[in-house]
Amino acid sequence: MIRLTRRYRFSAAHVLARPDWDDARNTEIYGKCANPSGHGHNYVLEVTVRGEVDPQSGRLVAVPKLDAIVRERVLALLDHRFLNRDVDRFETEVPTAENIARFAWDALKGEIAPSILDRIRLVETENNAVEYVGAEEEA
Amino acid sequence: MIRLTRRYRFSAAHVLARPDWDDARNTEIYGKCANPSGHGHNYVLEVTVRGEVDPQSGRLVAVPKLDAIVRERVLALLDHRFLNRDVDRFETEVPTAENIARFAWDALKGEIAPSILDRIRLVETENNAVEYVGAEEEA
Amino acid sequence: MIRLTRRYRFSAAHVLARPDWDDARNTEIYGKCANPSGHGHNYVLEVTVRGEVDPQSGRLVAVPKLDAIVRERVLALLDHRFLNRDVDRFETEVPTAENIARFAWDALKGEIAPSILDRIRLVETENNAVEYVGAEEEA
Amino acid sequence: MIRLTRRYRFSAAHVLARPDWDDARNTEIYGKCANPSGHGHNYVLEVTVRGEVDPQSGRLVAVPKLDAIVRERVLALLDHRFLNRDVDRFETEVPTAENIARFAWDALKGEIAPSILDRIRLVETENNAVEYVGAEEEA
Amino acid sequence: MIRLTRRYRFSAAHVLARPDWDDARNTEIYGKCANPSGHGHNYVLEVTVRGEVDPQSGRLVAVPKLDAIVRERVLALLDHRFLNRDVDRFETEVPTAENIARFAWDALKGEIAPSILDRIRLVETENNAVEYVGAEEEA
Amino acid sequence: MIRLTRRYRFSAAHVLARPDWDDARNTEIYGKCANPSGHGHNYVLEVTVRGEVDPQSGRLVAVPKLDAIVRERVLALLDHRFLNRDVDRFETEVPTAENIARFAWDALKGEIAPSILDRIRLVETENNAVEYVGAEEEA
Repeated sequence: MIRLTRRYRFSAAHVLARPDWDDARNTEIYGKCANPSGHGHNYVLEVTVRGEVDPQSGRLVAVPKLDAIVRERVLALLDHRFLNRDVDRFETEVPTAENIARFAWDALKGEIAPSILDRIRLVETENNAVEYVGAEEEA
Repeated sequence: MIRLTRRYRFSAAHVLARPDWDDARNTEIYGKCANPSGHGHNYVLEVTVRGEVDPQSGRLVAVPKLDAIVRERVLALLDHRFLNRDVDRFETEVPTAENIARFAWDALKGEIAPSILDRIRLVETENNAVEYVGAEEEA
Repeated sequence: MIRLTRRYRFSAAHVLARPDWDDARNTEIYGKCANPSGHGHNYVLEVTVRGEVDPQSGRLVAVPKLDAIVRERVLALLDHRFLNRDVDRFETEVPTAENIARFAWDALKGEIAPSILDRIRLVETENNAVEYVGAEEEA
Repeated sequence: MIRLTRRYRFSAAHVLARPDWDDARNTEIYGKCANPSGHGHNYVLEVTVRGEVDPQSGRLVAVPKLDAIVRERVLALLDHRFLNRDVDRFETEVPTAENIARFAWDALKGEIAPSILDRIRLVETENNAVEYVGAEEEA
Repeated sequence: MIRLTRRYRFSAAHVLARPDWDDARNTEIYGKCANPSGHGHNYVLEVTVRGEVDPQSGRLVAVPKLDAIVRERVLALLDHRFLNRDVDRFETEVPTAENIARFAWDALKGEIAPSILDRIRLVETENNAVEYVGAEEEA
Repeated sequence: MIRLTRRYRFSAAHVLARPDWDDARNTEIYGKCANPSGHGHNYVLEVTVRGEVDPQSGRLVAVPKLDAIVRERVLALLDHRFLNRDVDRFETEVPTAENIARFAWDALKGEIAPSILDRIRLVETENNAVEYVGAEEEA
């Protein structure tokens, strides 16, 4: 079994707060990230795929093709955006690291056959990262 | 399934040597770390928790609360200490990276419900790290 | 001559665009950063001071005191903010990396005597950084 | 269960192209790496072993011994080499990151008892890495 | 005075050896890099420009334009190349880090007016870097 | 003018406190580093030399020779030591980052002719570094 991980970067702004919660509750859950004006991060997105190495090419996946899919389906939508305002899904869902990772999983799942999407890792700051593994794809 | 990893840092000194072993045996197992005066490291402690994302908050865990628990139960005891002398457990147990990771696991296990402690990773130098997964918590 | 550099971090959102320029001009100068909704970064702020080492303490500066000044005069104003909206100076001045570095210089100049503020370095992304040296302080 | 990871570095050149494929096919699969003159990388090799912590030493493995094995069986063959020309196996197999990781696995499997080789991670550039887990060793 | 530094990456192979020197002399000067088959690196190229901040844009330089110049005049010639063979200048000059930095300086000098090229930094491995400042440009 | 920087690492323990000062004074100047048991760091030592590139070799300095000098005159004395106890100079001088940098300068000055020692940079933690330039060598 082999896994290949590609690392991508994007910069985005967000607010972590629910309008139906008061400030005390938002701050308890989200800390400083609840500031209503918004703030931002340099996100690192790590996309991991797994499968078998092709015996001829010695590769698990054609990397230029994988990069094109991630750019089109994820980075083009998130990079240099204010997530709560510019991305449909985050108008209702709070754009936490957890939810951004799920957004990337949903956007890429089933798109990179014959490889299988193995996991999404999203690094929000040098001290905070999440890793998401969604429901298994049918490869 | 989602995992969230927080990265913390502490600086500490230690000696890796058993008083009941001679120098040759200590050097065979511990290399340069056996110098009896002690030396030190900038440790990076990565605490990973797993569980379900709360559908309202979009978070796995309240990060400010998690940080407070790790600071109180681990960092306050290890940061800027000489581990063999200042920490009870390391008066008898050799403070290897392996044992420091187990110390952190034992200190945090069961303390972060409803999330589950998934693993502890301790980076001792840029070339040396351990990852510890203890007996499963009862969540 | 000795210099000491402390590294601080803050996360903020900004827009790089002038309202009196059209989109084509803004994009020519600012690239993707001109998106009017805003985006954000994990900024690294490096504050360098210089002077003589105190022969007794062996230190150039009392680091806890320097940290307190930087936190109060810079980080408290910029961290987890939308710079164009939450910081007076950036309501009129475009919050480029260059201007944020000058903001930090102006906030710290003359505040850390007997040391002298040597330079401010602001790292905006892993590929973009500025270094600012303002008019010499009178030490 | 505990895992220990050691990080090693080597610098090498390679070409990613099959002589029996034309340029268009090689470029589709390998991108810029297909340039026939060759190019190179600073590789990072992470060797992870797992097992039980020895209750006396507090260590999973004698690190100086592990380092010596990796240096002799892997680094001495790959460091400062042109892989396609200087390493027998890569005269016929394309030296992709995937295949270099398998080379390291095969070279180390069964050599570090009583520990078990857990995985090989090879970082080729800051944006590209593979992780390989071969057939289970009989420990 | 303000400086802006952009960080670029390229991967290349090279040999450090003079054909008119014997192996002992080449190894004395170049160490392991003298292996005649070649080896390679992930180079980091840092281009620093200096000048005055434009009071309107708040920028020292139009970054998209600077990036285009560096890509066309430096990266397109060096990335994914075997330097001794694919770059005219390095057929006669040994492609040391020092000489690659001078190559970049010569390629960029005078091309980024009204800013002034301040210095070139080339990071060859995580432990080896050079910084080059050529003869002053006439701005 | 060209500068070459080599990066070395060592791990050491130290205490920052003067025995003739009380705890309050030591904590004011040194913060948590004043804990009398000691603590430690993974230090990064950057040695920068400058001079002219040799037109034949394309190198400023024979790197293997420079490495040997730094290992013998600095690293062998500091690596895996408790600085206050194991290094003569630090029995009386407080082993601050500033004083360790001066130690390295004094040990290397005049030893690497025909190159000139340009500066010493010592990184103590990811947030704390000093840079020292001593009295000019007579080259």
